[in-house]
Amino acid sequence: MNYLENLLAEQIPTSEETKKLGEISSTIIQKINDICKADNINASCTEVGSVSKNTNLKSSDIDIFVTFDKSYSVDYIEKKGLEIGHRVLENGTEKYAEHPYVSGYVMGIKVDVVPAFKISEGEKIVSTVDRTPLHTLYVNSNTDEAMVHDIRLLKVFMKSINVYGSEISRSGFSGYLCELLIIHFKNFDRLMGYMANLRGKLIVPENTEDKFSEPVIIIDPVDPSRNAGAAVSEENLSRLKLASKLYMAGREDILNHTPRINKNRGTHIMVFVVKKPDIIDDIIYPQAVRLKNRIWDILHNNGFMPVASEIYVGSDIEILIECELGMLPGTKVHMGPPVESNESIKFIDVWNSNARLMRGPYILKNRVYVDVRTEQRDMEGIIRKELKNSDIGKNLNELKDEIKIINGEDTDLEVVRKFFSKYLFNS
Amino acid sequence: MNYLENLLAEQIPTSEETKKLGEISSTIIQKINDICKADNINASCTEVGSVSKNTNLKSSDIDIFVTFDKSYSVDYIEKKGLEIGHRVLENGTEKYAEHPYVSGYVMGIKVDVVPAFKISEGEKIVSTVDRTPLHTLYVNSNTDEAMVHDIRLLKVFMKSINVYGSEISRSGFSGYLCELLIIHFKNFDRLMGYMANLRGKLIVPENTEDKFSEPVIIIDPVDPSRNAGAAVSEENLSRLKLASKLYMAGREDILNHTPRINKNRGTHIMVFVVKKPDIIDDIIYPQAVRLKNRIWDILHNNGFMPVASEIYVGSDIEILIECELGMLPGTKVHMGPPVESNESIKFIDVWNSNARLMRGPYILKNRVYVDVRTEQRDMEGIIRKELKNSDIGKNLNELKDEIKIINGEDTDLEVVRKFFSKYLFNS
Repeated sequence: MNYLENLLAEQIPTSEETKKLGEISSTIIQKINDICKADNINASCTEVGSVSKNTNLKSSDIDIFVTFDKSYSVDYIEKKGLEIGHRVLENGTEKYAEHPYVSGYVMGIKVDVVPAFKISEGEKIVSTVDRTPLHTLYVNSNTDEAMVHDIRLLKVFMKSINVYGSEISRSGFSGYLCELLIIHFKNFDRLMGYMANLRGKLIVPENTEDKFSEPVIIIDPVDPSRNAGAAVSEENLSRLKLASKLYMAGREDILNHTPRINKNRGTHIMVFVVKKPDIIDDIIYPQAVRLKNRIWDILHNNGFMPVASEIYVGSDIEILIECELGMLPGTKVHMGPPVESNESIKFIDVWNSNARLMRGPYILKNRVYVDVRTEQRDMEGIIRKELKNSDIGKNLNELKDEIKIINGEDTDLEVVRKFFSKYLFNS
Repeated sequence: MNYLENLLAEQIPTSEETKKLGEISSTIIQKINDICKADNINASCTEVGSVSKNTNLKSSDIDIFVTFDKSYSVDYIEKKGLEIGHRVLENGTEKYAEHPYVSGYVMGIKVDVVPAFKISEGEKIVSTVDRTPLHTLYVNSNTDEAMVHDIRLLKVFMKSINVYGSEISRSGFSGYLCELLIIHFKNFDRLMGYMANLRGKLIVPENTEDKFSEPVIIIDPVDPSRNAGAAVSEENLSRLKLASKLYMAGREDILNHTPRINKNRGTHIMVFVVKKPDIIDDIIYPQAVRLKNRIWDILHNNGFMPVASEIYVGSDIEILIECELGMLPGTKVHMGPPVESNESIKFIDVWNSNARLMRGPYILKNRVYVDVRTEQRDMEGIIRKELKNSDIGKNLNELKDEIKIINGEDTDLEVVRKFFSKYLFNS
């Protein structure tokens, strides 16, 4: 299909870039090996990541792993890892994943130097990064040039339908998953044909015992107890299924369609905005989702009838909720006890003298009822009151009072744009 | 309890009225017996109804039954019944219950002359009116002066709490039920004590096998296979239970309370008005209720969220429905097929070219969705359209197009007054 090959042509690295990446990584690996030898450290240095597997797209990072012998302590490898990182990366900064590591730029290319323990296939890992060199080894020994091409094609395809990337806010397919899929299905077209007709979960290999609860189950060849596809959401699996159907049917028009935007929806759209705390997305994003769900529940329980929502996390957390009602009815039916209960007269006395009584008491079937005036009818007041007593996550709890509530018609925030342009292949 | 005896004093017939009623009925009975003798008709004449049992309140009618031997045909007794009726009631008019009968006025008192078959207790009846003379006989042979007083007291009590009367629009307790209750419980206070503590159905006698589905089961002593309480609604049983509790607790204040009216309910009230066809209430009332239920269902199914309703049948049928929404949201979420189904691409194509598409198509979980513009948002348009295809009863179907739809705020129709003044003891 021409349009995909065209996309790939735009995103595949030039031979110049490939040459430059090769020179940078050789130089750094050489330096690290020299340091280890000089300092008598039992460690070796290896390149991992897409560049090392030749499956990278343009502007990829270089990932260098320093793999220490398992006899070292975690403290030791973390300390030594940083030390080595700083020695090979001038102006490198420290970052933190499972271990701290050093990240810097060499000739304009981002390079990470990450410490890990050296393990062999089947051996117990100490931290999850320890598996990475095995992944690289597995992919390099199971791909040829044609497959490497198709892995890049698959990445481009996944990107074009917004399902590429394993960060929590994306919940898509990682580069490693793309590699595993092409290795398993041999080439891109066979994968498309399979996905276009798949019903239910994606399970690779197909005969895997279904002991995982996630919608995508792709067994990690270097650790068969691990589901490498655990992070993929059901929506993203659905997107890949539908996109594969469309690819097989030659329906580029739907794949590349830009939806028309209609703003006059005749509903009530509210936007909740709060400054994003300075914490990595993978931690703050689930809290933002929790806040969105909490607001939805409050609106639902109070009778505003929420029907749609959207979330965007940039420099601010932006949450949009669309409701059928903009204001609660002024009166609510309140059910009292059965007439025959000992509480019925008490209920009547209480309400007859209550200023909120709007009608009754009256009888329906076997019970006493009253119609009661709704004390608070506006959305903002109810949300603010109920959020006070809600736990919305460690980092957001302290920001509750700073949440701005804006009418959706009065703003063109990113979340509003995202909401109105929602389509099959954006998320 | 003094207030009830006061009410009774106002409603008990004066000795003058009683004397007059006695004279009128003796005269008519004498005349009818003379006619039967002269014409050689095997029938006898008997007074029935509350006057004959001394349980009447002021301004009661006189009911005279002409009971024919069972060997006559239905045609014969209907013909002879009318003939006799006209001979004893000058200017009498013909009416129709189970048989046609003659109704007229004598000295300002309404008198009905009704034909029936003479049956004995336990014998099979031909029409339900045949039982009436047996009811009179039963009540007269099982009451004394004190009980007759308490029957009148009970009727006054039932009237004051609006549960007296067996017509369908009332669904309350008939005079005969009042008589049976006092006969069974011996006096008014014992009945009150029993009702005040009753839970669940009212079953008289208490040990009756529960083979009837109605909330009130009062076995007819002259025909134990019949539930004389079948017409009483659950609401009216509830009202009697609660009123008895209040009576026992000396809470006249609640029994006689006049509720405050609050009109500003912050909801959407619509009133539907149509001329009542010239048909007796017991036939037209159920059709009016069916129309009310149909309108409720239409509003509910379309998402207007009806919360309360009221009905009034006078010279017009007036139906009031209160809703949380006055107008439907402009957009509705429309669920499509699962992405993996063969229909998914067709669904996308159909909606991408539909002018009602407001957003999408997009994916949630494993399905394709679109947001669609609501074509008709106003209540009146939707009701009119959907009523066209609804069966609302023989007599109302032809009046569908004449239903007026009025905003509840723009009218002070009886149904509106009834709605706003709803209380424990009005219905």
